Amino acid sequence: MLWEINMAQKPSIPKGTRDFNASDVAKRTYIMETIKEQFQIYGFQPIETPSFENSDTLMGKYGDEGDRLIFKILNSGDYLSKYKDSIIKLILSVLKKNQEYLLKMKDDIADEEILNFKNITTNEIRKIASSEIGKIVIEVLGEEKYDNNEEKNDDFLNIILKEVSTKGDYLLKFIEFNREELYIEATKIFEKHSEFIDSKYLSPYISEKALRYDLTVPFARYVVQHQNDIEFPFKRYQIQPVWRADRPQKGRFREFYQCDADVVGSKSLFQEVEFVQLYDAVFSALKLEGVTIKINNRKILSGIAEVIGAQDKLIDFTVALDKLDKIGEDKVKEEMRGKGISEDGITKLQPLFTLKGEFGEQIESLKSILSASEIGLKGIEELEFINTAISNLELKTAILQLDVTLARGLNYYTGAIFEVSAPHGVKMGSIGGGGRYDDLTGIFGLKDMSGVGISFGLDRIYLVLEELNLFPSTITESTKVLFINFGQDEAMFSLNAVTKLRQAQVKAELFPDAAVSGKQRKKQMNYANRRNIPFVVIMGEEELKSEMYTLKNMVSGEQQTVNFDQLLSLLK
Amino acid sequence: MLWEINMAQKPSIPKGTRDFNASDVAKRTYIMETIKEQFQIYGFQPIETPSFENSDTLMGKYGDEGDRLIFKILNSGDYLSKYKDSIIKLILSVLKKNQEYLLKMKDDIADEEILNFKNITTNEIRKIASSEIGKIVIEVLGEEKYDNNEEKNDDFLNIILKEVSTKGDYLLKFIEFNREELYIEATKIFEKHSEFIDSKYLSPYISEKALRYDLTVPFARYVVQHQNDIEFPFKRYQIQPVWRADRPQKGRFREFYQCDADVVGSKSLFQEVEFVQLYDAVFSALKLEGVTIKINNRKILSGIAEVIGAQDKLIDFTVALDKLDKIGEDKVKEEMRGKGISEDGITKLQPLFTLKGEFGEQIESLKSILSASEIGLKGIEELEFINTAISNLELKTAILQLDVTLARGLNYYTGAIFEVSAPHGVKMGSIGGGGRYDDLTGIFGLKDMSGVGISFGLDRIYLVLEELNLFPSTITESTKVLFINFGQDEAMFSLNAVTKLRQAQVKAELFPDAAVSGKQRKKQMNYANRRNIPFVVIMGEEELKSEMYTLKNMVSGEQQTVNFDQLLSLLK
Repeated sequence: MLWEINMAQKPSIPKGTRDFNASDVAKRTYIMETIKEQFQIYGFQPIETPSFENSDTLMGKYGDEGDRLIFKILNSGDYLSKYKDSIIKLILSVLKKNQEYLLKMKDDIADEEILNFKNITTNEIRKIASSEIGKIVIEVLGEEKYDNNEEKNDDFLNIILKEVSTKGDYLLKFIEFNREELYIEATKIFEKHSEFIDSKYLSPYISEKALRYDLTVPFARYVVQHQNDIEFPFKRYQIQPVWRADRPQKGRFREFYQCDADVVGSKSLFQEVEFVQLYDAVFSALKLEGVTIKINNRKILSGIAEVIGAQDKLIDFTVALDKLDKIGEDKVKEEMRGKGISEDGITKLQPLFTLKGEFGEQIESLKSILSASEIGLKGIEELEFINTAISNLELKTAILQLDVTLARGLNYYTGAIFEVSAPHGVKMGSIGGGGRYDDLTGIFGLKDMSGVGISFGLDRIYLVLEELNLFPSTITESTKVLFINFGQDEAMFSLNAVTKLRQAQVKAELFPDAAVSGKQRKKQMNYANRRNIPFVVIMGEEELKSEMYTLKNMVSGEQQTVNFDQLLSLLK
Repeated sequence: MLWEINMAQKPSIPKGTRDFNASDVAKRTYIMETIKEQFQIYGFQPIETPSFENSDTLMGKYGDEGDRLIFKILNSGDYLSKYKDSIIKLILSVLKKNQEYLLKMKDDIADEEILNFKNITTNEIRKIASSEIGKIVIEVLGEEKYDNNEEKNDDFLNIILKEVSTKGDYLLKFIEFNREELYIEATKIFEKHSEFIDSKYLSPYISEKALRYDLTVPFARYVVQHQNDIEFPFKRYQIQPVWRADRPQKGRFREFYQCDADVVGSKSLFQEVEFVQLYDAVFSALKLEGVTIKINNRKILSGIAEVIGAQDKLIDFTVALDKLDKIGEDKVKEEMRGKGISEDGITKLQPLFTLKGEFGEQIESLKSILSASEIGLKGIEELEFINTAISNLELKTAILQLDVTLARGLNYYTGAIFEVSAPHGVKMGSIGGGGRYDDLTGIFGLKDMSGVGISFGLDRIYLVLEELNLFPSTITESTKVLFINFGQDEAMFSLNAVTKLRQAQVKAELFPDAAVSGKQRKKQMNYANRRNIPFVVIMGEEELKSEMYTLKNMVSGEQQTVNFDQLLSLLK
């Protein structure tokens, strides 16, 4: 490592990224460890995948917008070497084309058949006039010099001959004219070989790896790659950062953690039941009581679309329905009309707008709306199973709520859809979400693997816990006691005590530098204060002689002089 | 997320990266948590920095080789847009140059002064002959057509005139000839603008971020950026992955964790003492007893170089000395002679080759060698302080050893140098290292910040613990009990028990799919076996009726039928 001095360099971090200080790390660790503990109690096993995957693995899995947001890693070494050869070849081919064009022109001019104009026929003259060289001559000399009839032929050909015979005057003009032509020619070649100057096409040549965009695709890749070593159903959890080149905003980062639990290899609805319980268990463990676990089923949305004859408008319809809370019934209907959903269909939807009450009551209303849709009734059956099981098992602090407007990631969920919202009164988007996708691993060639999973939104949970003051005060507690450093001998004696305290798991520190003045001792006390260290040991000349320790409580100011055993029991 | 089906895609991960399964994660977590716990007991506070930094922050800090190994991230969006404009401009400028060249030739040919050869002087002829057009004509027509004396002037000029007057024949030849010229011209322009086709020059245009290469530079950046929020001395630890585009080998990865603890803002040698203790504490906690903590001091190396009059050959000298164990005394001396170290100097070094015995004895030998070097004696004083303190405090299981051949990262260490090697008998490179660097944050403009730190090599420690079978068996224990699924009703009842077990922190699972045949039940038992789940609950029709649970020990095969309270106490 060779460090060059650069005074001017003002350090900063890329937009959308964050530094975490000790308190941030402690709080984030608390959330992650709580989630992890419940994941393990529920039988999920941890896996970790590399931060970057082969681009092939990620590209094309998240739609065009997703592809755009994937961070690509430049190939290492001379990544342009192949590209360099190609671009030189390309430029030379443009130059060669230019030369060939000039040569062809020269040949045309020198062509004896053209020069031998005395014996030429009208048709041949017309052919010359419409030839490349003819057109250029006409353009250069002005259109009035040529008329497409027999009488003026001689004039035209004489002009060509005269121009040619003026030893290069024409060529001069041609070369000037040709400059513009070449630009067009070059542009055409570039368009044909646009991969060399277009970011989208160039990327695969210079980048073969990309940063993880989510944990689901790497999980699917993992399952397929290691399928022979995995016992199915495979319950895995994964807590790792992901990266997205999104425009950074308040609460939206370019690097953030995802905390996912998924099961792959079983279609049993008991999984959905367990995921509802798992959400409840985690949020209860975090003392975040009263979260709402919203549930829906893709089959119900399909059923509704079927009943109103808008199967092809499933997304338009759900996008509109999703806004019910925000814009109200009338505007939702207006939007649906705008998207071409029939008045008859909207009438059939009416009960949906007033869907209220308990889970069971809502289910009954849905049954009447969806009575004619097989898939819709299947969705209801699934929801009923989950709701009945959860009612029997009882949640600790969360509320399970049916929300037919819930659509999240409609493109890939095929069964249950989950979303968790913070307790009433806390303004925050969803703090978790998930669902079932029937073909998780098909993208990598392993068919018929149904998956269902949920995710926890670490950053938002953090903000909610902060707002509600739910972080336990103990988690940010760091060092318990600081020994003030009165000089070499005292410090050496102190370090002995510090060592024994540490062996007894007490977080203890010795201030490294000797305080030779009262002012410096004051500075060390301030250091303890600012770091919120609750106890300080004063180990001066007196104490050294008597081998005793003066322990000061930094909150109460209380002081007592004790031997080591007493010290240990006071700090333990 | 839009998933496209691609059967042919065979998933894999980039070379040098790894997937970690549940057992890997558990073992790695065990090591990291053990290290983290000791870091905290010693008063270090965690920080985390972003995975990628601004390229400016990293580039130029690790030498040319380091720069090459830094993974660069492509700018997002149309990263080539500026580059695209530049390359089109470049190509057009080549084409324009081509045109100008042709036009100039045309002008030269048409130049009346040249054509008016009758009145031309010898000097003027020579001038023409040595002009660009003259040279080309000579080359095209053959050198015998021109001789640089007056008699043949007329012939030469006649030839030129004749060529010109043959209406383009010469131009035709010129154009063909010019093709080669153009290639040279294009190459020259490319060389002038090589940033557009050279990876090294292009990178800053298309990449502004790079993946973290180590934790030290981001830490220095963090300290400078947040200096107003930090209490100094600042003791921080950081356990995060780093990325290097190194050629992957056995045991060398492109993504790996670093576990670092550093103190910045104090020159006290008590820090060095504590780091020796910290190494001892961590390896003792990992039950990895008998590691050797090797220590040296840059000042001693400087002192030796001074004494033998080879201050300018400090690196050559230490590189050679570092090989003593491997190649022996004679070859080391040979290498030193090869590097220009004097015979007199090598004689002075003699005691170094036979430096043996206890720390204290070695120190005495060094004192005699270094008696004339102020800096060398300072280094000895520092080492003595550390050794005396450690002798007083006593290490639990590690051995502190002086090793004057230890040089690691000589470029930036200024005081103590540490390296830890695995216990005797385990073949493994260093499993930890560190040292003091007097100007940690100077690169980012904050002067006079001395830092000292150590690092743990996670991957190597993992291999050593694996080889010595030191991982506690409990850490890879996952689910404690699996409930066999006999059908809907039994499963529902089972899930109730599973829920209660989980609430009591017992890791419990219900097999999600119903086993309707004996074969399927057998499959579920096998599933438990293969996942090393030690207990299985059989909850069939009988058990459902009696609300009892048949618990099977999967190791002993023993079975007992119990009520829930008994079940809980057996599994707790």
